[in-house]
Amino acid sequence: MPTHPVTIGRETRELPVVNVGAVSVALLNLLGDTLLTEAAAEALATRVPDGVEVLVTPEVKAVPLAHALSVRTGLPYVVVRKTLKPYMVGGFSRTVHSITTGTPQDLVLDGADVPRLRGKGVAIVDDVISTGGTLHALTDLLSEVDARVVATMVVFTEGEVRDDVVALGHLPLFPAEAGA
Amino acid sequence: MPTHPVTIGRETRELPVVNVGAVSVALLNLLGDTLLTEAAAEALATRVPDGVEVLVTPEVKAVPLAHALSVRTGLPYVVVRKTLKPYMVGGFSRTVHSITTGTPQDLVLDGADVPRLRGKGVAIVDDVISTGGTLHALTDLLSEVDARVVATMVVFTEGEVRDDVVALGHLPLFPAEAGA
Repeated sequence: MPTHPVTIGRETRELPVVNVGAVSVALLNLLGDTLLTEAAAEALATRVPDGVEVLVTPEVKAVPLAHALSVRTGLPYVVVRKTLKPYMVGGFSRTVHSITTGTPQDLVLDGADVPRLRGKGVAIVDDVISTGGTLHALTDLLSEVDARVVATMVVFTEGEVRDDVVALGHLPLFPAEAGA
Repeated sequence: MPTHPVTIGRETRELPVVNVGAVSVALLNLLGDTLLTEAAAEALATRVPDGVEVLVTPEVKAVPLAHALSVRTGLPYVVVRKTLKPYMVGGFSRTVHSITTGTPQDLVLDGADVPRLRGKGVAIVDDVISTGGTLHALTDLLSEVDARVVATMVVFTEGEVRDDVVALGHLPLFPAEAGA
């Protein structure tokens, strides 16, 4: 399987490059990679901009990163869920398309988390930002509860290099035939 | 809203008691509760039985706990996912019913995680064990990849008190009319 090397702090990984349709992408998986998650949190913790009062992360791949960043910064975090659960009251939702799953996905905010966000400055925390689709949907969703996105913090940007995002590195997109 | 008090280490919380059909349950939510998650990981870390080589947690509510327990113990962890993704190769799945969601749920093991589990002694890590449905499905799924479940570690047992599980406390079930 083709791979793409990345380094965060003292951790290096060979990410598998997999075909996802029109392109191939290097797959970052923080779930189950404790040391890489801790290294990323350590690096991002020093770069949280002023005005951030709450971290917000979409379920599920960046949840350990949000937790680890919360431990280091003392900032609380909120997880935006994928599905509305019967026990959620007063939730909000948005639909978004993901490059790696290919299917529309809902972003759901539990009503119980709304008071933790209202009027607050938010940093969105994610593993990889690619087309920005999730970011836009999250920003819309957060504005509905009167929260302002003041920063987006990711491990890697992907495809287009962006200077509006705090990132620890960049992943290129690969031609479709480069992926396994 | 009715609540039920719990204490883990130095953290105390009033859990909302919500109706989920025939009964009401106290809802523990570790997602976004950094201090409670850290307190639970701290307490569980001292109680990992001999023979545990890998932690396994079902997506998503106990993922931060598994990460925090992994940080403290040095044991790796694997997340069992809810849906098969296009980029997963050689995955395994099982279907389970959840008391808090009421709908059947799939448990999916990414093929990339199988080598991390094969032949290993596993501790299942979860937030709450209630009917044991998820536990049974996880145990089946893990046996398919030749992993042995040597411990189940949870924050709380619920309903029935069980002595086959490492738990930090117990949650009662409430009559349906007790919940909000």
